Amino acid sequence: MIDFITLCDYSGTFAFAISGIRLASAKQFDWFGAYVIGLVTAVGGGTLRDLLLNATPFWMEQASYLTVSGLALLFVIIFKKFVIRLNNTFFIFDAIGLGLFAVVGIVKTLEFGFPMWVAIVMGTITGSFGGMLRDTLINEVPLIFRKDIYALACVFGGFIYYLCTFTGMSSSIIQFITAVSVFLIRVIAVKYHVSVPVLKGEES
Amino acid sequence: MIDFITLCDYSGTFAFAISGIRLASAKQFDWFGAYVIGLVTAVGGGTLRDLLLNATPFWMEQASYLTVSGLALLFVIIFKKFVIRLNNTFFIFDAIGLGLFAVVGIVKTLEFGFPMWVAIVMGTITGSFGGMLRDTLINEVPLIFRKDIYALACVFGGFIYYLCTFTGMSSSIIQFITAVSVFLIRVIAVKYHVSVPVLKGEES
Amino acid sequence: MIDFITLCDYSGTFAFAISGIRLASAKQFDWFGAYVIGLVTAVGGGTLRDLLLNATPFWMEQASYLTVSGLALLFVIIFKKFVIRLNNTFFIFDAIGLGLFAVVGIVKTLEFGFPMWVAIVMGTITGSFGGMLRDTLINEVPLIFRKDIYALACVFGGFIYYLCTFTGMSSSIIQFITAVSVFLIRVIAVKYHVSVPVLKGEES
Repeated sequence: MIDFITLCDYSGTFAFAISGIRLASAKQFDWFGAYVIGLVTAVGGGTLRDLLLNATPFWMEQASYLTVSGLALLFVIIFKKFVIRLNNTFFIFDAIGLGLFAVVGIVKTLEFGFPMWVAIVMGTITGSFGGMLRDTLINEVPLIFRKDIYALACVFGGFIYYLCTFTGMSSSIIQFITAVSVFLIRVIAVKYHVSVPVLKGEES
Repeated sequence: MIDFITLCDYSGTFAFAISGIRLASAKQFDWFGAYVIGLVTAVGGGTLRDLLLNATPFWMEQASYLTVSGLALLFVIIFKKFVIRLNNTFFIFDAIGLGLFAVVGIVKTLEFGFPMWVAIVMGTITGSFGGMLRDTLINEVPLIFRKDIYALACVFGGFIYYLCTFTGMSSSIIQFITAVSVFLIRVIAVKYHVSVPVLKGEES
Repeated sequence: MIDFITLCDYSGTFAFAISGIRLASAKQFDWFGAYVIGLVTAVGGGTLRDLLLNATPFWMEQASYLTVSGLALLFVIIFKKFVIRLNNTFFIFDAIGLGLFAVVGIVKTLEFGFPMWVAIVMGTITGSFGGMLRDTLINEVPLIFRKDIYALACVFGGFIYYLCTFTGMSSSIIQFITAVSVFLIRVIAVKYHVSVPVLKGEES
């Protein structure tokens, strides 16, 4: 039986891969290129985290991440028009993935014996570096630097995790609260157009 | 005496470095910048592979890769007009390098105890990530996502390697067959304009 | 009491972070995005060095680098007009950082048992890779490939370090000489517009 965390993990991977594949298709990439972009979007953050932690990259221990990214490609090819209309659904998946990836990054970093502030950085990297790589590879300025609250939701989630550790709650409840917080911060930020002030350019 | 594999390795490094230096020269880089781009193109794939495998990057154990890239720079500076006419020769070198790099990536990954599917990914990374870095650094959308069969030739090569392991052939013969296959797939794909279907953009 | 090396290290980090934040502000990044760019500029080179050396990235062992980058962001927000006029001051800081980062890269690599030529490469990576990442993330062709002597100053510094090892000087004096050399090469190159010849494009 597949457990809840694994289900979230696969949903997040699927949603992240879809976001990469859709952007690649807008740039006329071929199927293979789109697959690579989708895969990089989905596993890029966790890979950088594992390199920094000196751990074996997670996707090298289990083929399912490559498979899920492949299913995402198939899905986009088959249901192309459908996919465009499903914007909101994918946004929700993506936000779930963000919350879960942030928690995975935090937990794994603490397990490796690093202090909380490193774990917050790693949660943020796990959640947002894949999207940054995606945008760099398709030659765009990374969206996460310019729009809405994305990586920052992971940072807030990290602080919430930290605060929860003082309450005596069980670690699975803390993880759940953190993931939900990241998800809600992201959804609320987009719905109400909450954003960080722009640092005005020197020319202006 | 220099053996056949080493000769191929140096030829591939030389050809990969040349491709980076030529693209850098088209963007008006200075000599040093062009050298860096050439070096990154030549060793980038193997470096990412070694980081992921948690091995010491191969070029840190032997200065010859830096030297070969330097020779490639000298070659471009001295024989500039010649180099332009040699397009076909360099294409052949590049395809040889691709085949050999893919095999090196597969073999090293299997030696580290990873399963075949990881080895196929690593062969592909070894062969194609350098070119991807090159294109990102000179601020272009990576060519390998849009044109011909390049990284995909390494993937096919990996499957051929895998199939060969069931035949009882010696490992050096399997390696030779794989390298030749990648080379041929690449050459045939370019000659007959075989390509992967483009994933049509959402706008179209 | 804070020692001289630490003071230089923080000044360099501050100056590198400022350079990232200023470029990010010219591209209308928000505060968080600008902070990330500043941080990446400041710690990117040392992080790649540590990954290649298979060491724990230095900023994961001490929170001060994140703090200094945060102070750089505050500084730019508060003293915006001031910052623009301080171009020359920041150039000096940046050159100090370059010299110090190069020395740190060289020393750490030799401590890990690698030969001098690897140390020279690592000194150059430590000094210049952060700026390269910065330019790639904000979607520009890296400046260091096209303007003045920047990374190359680290290479020269490495050779000077190597020559000094034959003189019997104490290692702290060698380090000081190297850092000052890199600083001076950089300053003189900019002041007198010394640059490496451009590799003429194939079209020209």
